[in-house]
Amino acid sequence: MRVLSGIQPTGRPHWGNWFGAVQQYIALQNEDESYYFVANLHALTTIRDGEQLYQNSLNTTMDMLALGLDPEKAVLFLQSDVPEVSQLCWILMSGTPMGLLERCVSYKDKIAKGMPVVTGLFTYPVLQAADILAYDSNIVPVGEDQKQHIEFCRDVANAFNHQYGEVFVVPEPRILDQSAKIPGTDGEKMSKSYGNFIEVFEPVKSMKKKVMRIDTDSRPMEDSKEPEGDHLFQLYSLFAEPDKVEEMAATYRRGGFGYGDVKKALAEAAENYFAEARERRTELESDPDRIRDILNEGAKKARAKASEVLRRAQDACGLKPPRK
Amino acid sequence: MRVLSGIQPTGRPHWGNWFGAVQQYIALQNEDESYYFVANLHALTTIRDGEQLYQNSLNTTMDMLALGLDPEKAVLFLQSDVPEVSQLCWILMSGTPMGLLERCVSYKDKIAKGMPVVTGLFTYPVLQAADILAYDSNIVPVGEDQKQHIEFCRDVANAFNHQYGEVFVVPEPRILDQSAKIPGTDGEKMSKSYGNFIEVFEPVKSMKKKVMRIDTDSRPMEDSKEPEGDHLFQLYSLFAEPDKVEEMAATYRRGGFGYGDVKKALAEAAENYFAEARERRTELESDPDRIRDILNEGAKKARAKASEVLRRAQDACGLKPPRK
Repeated sequence: MRVLSGIQPTGRPHWGNWFGAVQQYIALQNEDESYYFVANLHALTTIRDGEQLYQNSLNTTMDMLALGLDPEKAVLFLQSDVPEVSQLCWILMSGTPMGLLERCVSYKDKIAKGMPVVTGLFTYPVLQAADILAYDSNIVPVGEDQKQHIEFCRDVANAFNHQYGEVFVVPEPRILDQSAKIPGTDGEKMSKSYGNFIEVFEPVKSMKKKVMRIDTDSRPMEDSKEPEGDHLFQLYSLFAEPDKVEEMAATYRRGGFGYGDVKKALAEAAENYFAEARERRTELESDPDRIRDILNEGAKKARAKASEVLRRAQDACGLKPPRK
Repeated sequence: MRVLSGIQPTGRPHWGNWFGAVQQYIALQNEDESYYFVANLHALTTIRDGEQLYQNSLNTTMDMLALGLDPEKAVLFLQSDVPEVSQLCWILMSGTPMGLLERCVSYKDKIAKGMPVVTGLFTYPVLQAADILAYDSNIVPVGEDQKQHIEFCRDVANAFNHQYGEVFVVPEPRILDQSAKIPGTDGEKMSKSYGNFIEVFEPVKSMKKKVMRIDTDSRPMEDSKEPEGDHLFQLYSLFAEPDKVEEMAATYRRGGFGYGDVKKALAEAAENYFAEARERRTELESDPDRIRDILNEGAKKARAKASEVLRRAQDACGLKPPRK
């Protein structure tokens, strides 16, 4: 089983990303084979500043490594370091009915959100299909919102196989549960667009400041409170050890405590939770050559697989001389 | 000055193609630098049979060589042998406004003619732009119908340069005069779609048969005839030596001749005209390794240039580490 995940280098992960998705993605490195790529070719449609895109790509790489992605277990690389994917993209595009792309809702959604009306956004699912098919991926873990794109990829692969013979492995989606609502500093779902987020690698001082400013209600201290419905408690229970969480729940029910104390406990728990990752992150930053080595090594492995798949496709559709 | 021409491997050239276009394209090899590619990636949208596409690509290569393309003067290669073009295609696509593609009339024309409604047909101009920009082409000779695509390429190149700095050479079109009407066997313009064509490399026997069946009028033999308006005479004057053409014109004006004799003269002139090319074609067919060598050598030269241009683009948009 080969599992493939792409990570957009569009921003730094916040607590919501970590608990809602990234954690689950990284756990997949324990499958038979796992490939992770930083989707810098996809990001080209939105990040139109070269220095920023490259720095973002490095940051995403370092974030993933710091958060536990192990290059000994997983293949980690930059999407653009595998030319075979762009080659395959055109081959697939040649046979992709326009109607199939026009039915993809994510393009319309993005346009509606004000993203630039560029061709790369429209043809995005074809590049995504090339990413998936290039490595004979069996499983593609995605959120519910990306399910249609995996269906698209399956349609494209099946159509190609039908036309030219069995060339591509048809992938299966694995829908990740991303329904868990991680509350932001205002109690609403944590999200970049609401501005209510705290980054995983936020400097500790700034993280603490944000935690201390989390919105709370104004019930009297002495009141007993139901912990489950409280976003401060919800956040705390993500970071603290189970026995500490139990203790905190008891405090809530008993009443007679200040939210300030809960916030302090939360800030401390969050600091501890990410302490190791933060340390690794600092180490990685001081060794850019190591990052390049990891990415180069990853690209080498990825290309070995992709060039094999590309060659099958090229043979089938007549871009290469028939083998004797 | 670098001149770039793409040739579709969709069919064998007929007399109309030769006198109307191919001849002019091949003459361009006398410019400073000339690149010719067999556009097999473009052909993928229409030729969905691998063996056929590869055979067509070889045929087009052999036709061009037989008709005088000199691999010592020109760089001749298969489009798909240059991965950099597909890579550049995606990069350009990321920034191409959908409106720019939607305005291209050739897509609508092709759909109206019943071609399959596939994405590759819609995004065709982007791949064409990548072809042109990948080699820092200064001049792109095209027919009037392709003028809009060169404008498209210029728009895309200018937009990229505006965003990222001077990366691409902005090409100029050179509009070839393709207005000459080469008559077909029915006197109408020779065209594949009218079925009134004679192929350049048609076997001599079959060519003669088709010539003998060319439609003629039923005026009496003894009448004097104006040569200029007669399609048989027009064809003859394309193939015969000037003094022979003069003689034939005199015969027309004098009257007292049979069209059968003109046809015989035409068939003989056409046979002589393409005799050398036909001989070269036979030689090339017997030496497939030589064709592969020529194409490989061409791809090597083309890639040397294209990888330099691609790298400039990748650096600019942040797909590669900043150079120190």
